[in-house]
Amino acid sequence: MSKAIPEPVIRLTEAFARLPGIGPKTAARLTYFLLRAPDEISQSLADALHDLKTETKFCSVCFNITVSDPCEICADAKRDGRVIAVVEEPLDVLAIERTGAYSGKYHVLHGAISPVNNIGPDDLRIRELVERVGQQDVLEVIIATNPGMEGDATAMYIKRELEPKGVKIQRLARGLPVGGDLEYVDSVTLTRALQGRSEF
Amino acid sequence: MSKAIPEPVIRLTEAFARLPGIGPKTAARLTYFLLRAPDEISQSLADALHDLKTETKFCSVCFNITVSDPCEICADAKRDGRVIAVVEEPLDVLAIERTGAYSGKYHVLHGAISPVNNIGPDDLRIRELVERVGQQDVLEVIIATNPGMEGDATAMYIKRELEPKGVKIQRLARGLPVGGDLEYVDSVTLTRALQGRSEF
Repeated sequence: MSKAIPEPVIRLTEAFARLPGIGPKTAARLTYFLLRAPDEISQSLADALHDLKTETKFCSVCFNITVSDPCEICADAKRDGRVIAVVEEPLDVLAIERTGAYSGKYHVLHGAISPVNNIGPDDLRIRELVERVGQQDVLEVIIATNPGMEGDATAMYIKRELEPKGVKIQRLARGLPVGGDLEYVDSVTLTRALQGRSEF
Repeated sequence: MSKAIPEPVIRLTEAFARLPGIGPKTAARLTYFLLRAPDEISQSLADALHDLKTETKFCSVCFNITVSDPCEICADAKRDGRVIAVVEEPLDVLAIERTGAYSGKYHVLHGAISPVNNIGPDDLRIRELVERVGQQDVLEVIIATNPGMEGDATAMYIKRELEPKGVKIQRLARGLPVGGDLEYVDSVTLTRALQGRSEF
């Protein structure tokens, strides 16, 4: 049977299937798409893959992905360095930047504490955050980890580590998502929305 | 806002987003996964992309993807060259090979006639099929295009082209999929299953 599949096709299919969310069928579909597509499409993907690792690094201050070090946000004097938003992933920085409602700086943990996946505090950039808060003139840390078990555990751990520094520690509000329907909101979220109710 | 995204990250995200079924969000997720993953994962993907185009070609007989020409199926003397299954895509060859129920040869059209997508008979390997049937000792052609409008139109066209050759032209059976539930089968399939009913 496998004689019908040339070795380079198998190799690319397997390489695609190692990516998250891409199963063997999708991987095969992508490979056969590229076989018929203009060379330029697979070439630009191969080049971009190569450049990704050679041209980017982690910002030595906030650990976001960057080309220059420190990154453009850390180097931006117009942003308020006294406020740090702590996020799990670089994509979370983008999400907050998109709101246009935040002008402080960031700290990227690169994950969340997860005993199931064998990820402990030392696997994240928590020590660097504590050092940063100790060295710089930081007044407020907004813990913006994901609302879930792992994000909450990470937030609790960071809170405990930062408390001796005497810095104001905040957490993103929990409640109903805008545009959501009360009928379909899960009860944990609804409970949080009740607990966090505010004067109208 | 875009200052938060380094140029190599944007480039790889855009390259992923050009693949079918991968939207901007999935593309960003893949890129950020690779940023944190071991270099070996993006490297092997880049290498496999490069090799795909340089190391594979179309079989000059059946137009399947292959490393050697003619391909291993065409070169296999144990397979019956008097029967040709005509399929739209190389992946369809794999699907039929997986059944283990076919020992003839193949012909890959690389698509189906589709006026909407501006694909006519001349964009497919139909002329080569007709030539092949004329030159070789072919007794039977099984048209195994997809069961749908475009596959049916392609099958009709091929049938008309091959009829003068005096070859036996067959089509894959239509009916209920094995394991399917009558209640959920669409009425076109059910109609075909009724029309094609056989003695029990």
